[in-house]
Amino acid sequence: MTDAPIINRLALIGTGLIGGSIARAARASGAAKTIVATARSPETRKRIRELGFANQVTETNAEAVRDADLVIVSIPVGASGPVAKEIAPNLKPGAILSDVGSVKGSVVRDMSPFVPAGVHFIPAHPVAGTENSGPDAGFAELFVNRWCILTPVQGTEEPAVETLRAFWEKIGANVQVMTPEHHDLVLAITSHLPHLIAYTIVGTANELGEVTESEVLKFSAGGFRDFTRIAASDPTMWRDVFLHNKDAVLEMLGTFNEDLSKLTRAIRRGDGNALFDHFARTRAIRRGIVNIGQDSAVPDFGRQHAP
Amino acid sequence: MTDAPIINRLALIGTGLIGGSIARAARASGAAKTIVATARSPETRKRIRELGFANQVTETNAEAVRDADLVIVSIPVGASGPVAKEIAPNLKPGAILSDVGSVKGSVVRDMSPFVPAGVHFIPAHPVAGTENSGPDAGFAELFVNRWCILTPVQGTEEPAVETLRAFWEKIGANVQVMTPEHHDLVLAITSHLPHLIAYTIVGTANELGEVTESEVLKFSAGGFRDFTRIAASDPTMWRDVFLHNKDAVLEMLGTFNEDLSKLTRAIRRGDGNALFDHFARTRAIRRGIVNIGQDSAVPDFGRQHAP
Ligand SMILES: NC(=O)c1ccc[n+]([C@@H]2O[C@H](COP(=O)([O-])OP(=O)(O)OC[C@H]3O[C@@H](n4cnc5c(N)ncnc54)[C@H](OP(=O)(O)O)[C@@H]3O)[C@@H](O)[C@H]2O)c1
Ligand SMILES: NC(=O)c1ccc[n+]([C@@H]2O[C@H](COP(=O)([O-])OP(=O)(O)OC[C@H]3O[C@@H](n4cnc5c(N)ncnc54)[C@H](OP(=O)(O)O)[C@@H]3O)[C@@H](O)[C@H]2O)c1
Repeated sequence: MTDAPIINRLALIGTGLIGGSIARAARASGAAKTIVATARSPETRKRIRELGFANQVTETNAEAVRDADLVIVSIPVGASGPVAKEIAPNLKPGAILSDVGSVKGSVVRDMSPFVPAGVHFIPAHPVAGTENSGPDAGFAELFVNRWCILTPVQGTEEPAVETLRAFWEKIGANVQVMTPEHHDLVLAITSHLPHLIAYTIVGTANELGEVTESEVLKFSAGGFRDFTRIAASDPTMWRDVFLHNKDAVLEMLGTFNEDLSKLTRAIRRGDGNALFDHFARTRAIRRGIVNIGQDSAVPDFGRQHAP
Repeated sequence: MTDAPIINRLALIGTGLIGGSIARAARASGAAKTIVATARSPETRKRIRELGFANQVTETNAEAVRDADLVIVSIPVGASGPVAKEIAPNLKPGAILSDVGSVKGSVVRDMSPFVPAGVHFIPAHPVAGTENSGPDAGFAELFVNRWCILTPVQGTEEPAVETLRAFWEKIGANVQVMTPEHHDLVLAITSHLPHLIAYTIVGTANELGEVTESEVLKFSAGGFRDFTRIAASDPTMWRDVFLHNKDAVLEMLGTFNEDLSKLTRAIRRGDGNALFDHFARTRAIRRGIVNIGQDSAVPDFGRQHAP
């Protein structure tokens, strides 16, 4: 790997968990020479200055993108359209415009109309995150050994895609290219449906008359706590994900409900063989994930056990 | 805390994850003076000898309990009744008989009939575990800062309960007493339903035509992998849990399904406010769990991010 920066001037619009991690990672790896950042609120802009992970902090989005070679928009997907409109006039010809949104079809639909000729629009989604948000939550290693999906629209020039790929690889990610539609199906099952289920069950536990909230918290180590982590993710981000990937999520939900009915029936009928067979099959999937390095096999995710 | 052992002679029937962890913890903490262990298969008995976490390994369950002051049965709950029958004639008067099963009502029903007069039967359930099983999976710190629930039946003598409490506290656990029925409701929501949901969604992901298994594995860091951990738990243990805590699980499933329908309707109608409100509420529950030390706030459960 050469040490020359991949990007001369990087502009980051939105510097929460993802934008803030890109800034830190780009600096730590030398992937960008100059980093310009901005955020919606004066408080976050002040905080970026204090944290010092950008070379320059601008007051507006339009200002931030001026002369930038790569612009990455890292905000809730529902806000993509208006931001694209706002920055479009200032985008430099030849620049790459990208994002990190968890839905891709709607981002393509909402941003494309504003992209000027000569600007390479390449939507992206790094499949990495934590339940925390805001500029303090980011860290340089977030993308290491995680996948970043690029979803270029038809007719995108290959060298621009290669530059964006090189940028993500430089900050530690593996890169895969697919269509926006396929992305939205894959993420519906690997991320959106799991979040919806986790949000549901955590809500259910909170409203039971017979079992108190304090009991739910105390005895959460029996499995429940694994769900609470993802049900603690940012409500605005997730509202936008479900509003914008509605069709794929509803499709996956349909299949999930059928499968849950089958297992429920097996429990009701006392069909131990059906339960055993299903449980034995799912075990193998976990092994696959640990084997390809997308999770840790340390007992209990390496949680601390000493008090 | 005094250094005298709480238990003179401890007998362990079943030495998988839980029994093997009790043995290691009892030895490390000095909670028991002598540890006798056995398991169903010759292979596991051989392995206990190699691992050396017991002072004595017996060939039969009946032999293991002779002269024991505390007997802990750590096997799938469906096997409790036959084992109780087998050991009953050899239990010493004044001994405490306990277990670790994840369901308590059925264990009381299945074991009680065999308990001889003069033996204190006190069912228990340590709310701690990992997805691994077998004698090699155990470790001494498993119970540290976790809860162990005791469900003594009516008329149990208080000093025996206090001795069992002291034993669990000595190996690191916090102890709470409740009825078997209440235990089964609390665990239905904090552990059994989460496992059922996780088993379901991991199965769903595995059967989709449009998204390949390799894509599910690759992009699992978006949320899915958090479910696979608990869906990798032992199939025999979980078959028994669902067969034996059927009523409470079906009740919780009913409430869960209603809540999932509500969120599904909000997605279908594009009701962003309803989604946002629900997601904001569940976030607070996660904070509660981290605050009382039942989970780690380290990003991503402290998973390793470097390759
Ligand atoms: N969190 C994850 O796990 C994850 C993973 C992969 C991709 N993503 C995607 O990454 C994007 C950002 O998520 P995040 O986790 O970084 O969120 P975050 O930590 O909450 O940060 C959001 C950023 O967006 C800005 N913002 C919020 N609403 C805005 C609006 N209406 N217009 C302009 N800017 C706005 C915020 O500015 P202020 O701070 O000034 O409010 C903040 O800088 C989302 O599209 C999400 O789908 C998230
Ligand atoms: N895993 C958890 O997270 C967890 C947490 C709390 C409580 N529990 C409860 O703890 C108990 C044991 O679970 P575990 O995780 O320790 O399981 P495990 O690692 O699979 O070990 C099971 C043990 O039970 C023995 N066994 C299996 N079937 C038997 C039968 N029909 N008759 C007699 N012995 C039999 C096995 O002997 P062989 O090795 O010779 O086959 C082995 O020693 C279960 O009741 C479970 O509900 C589990």
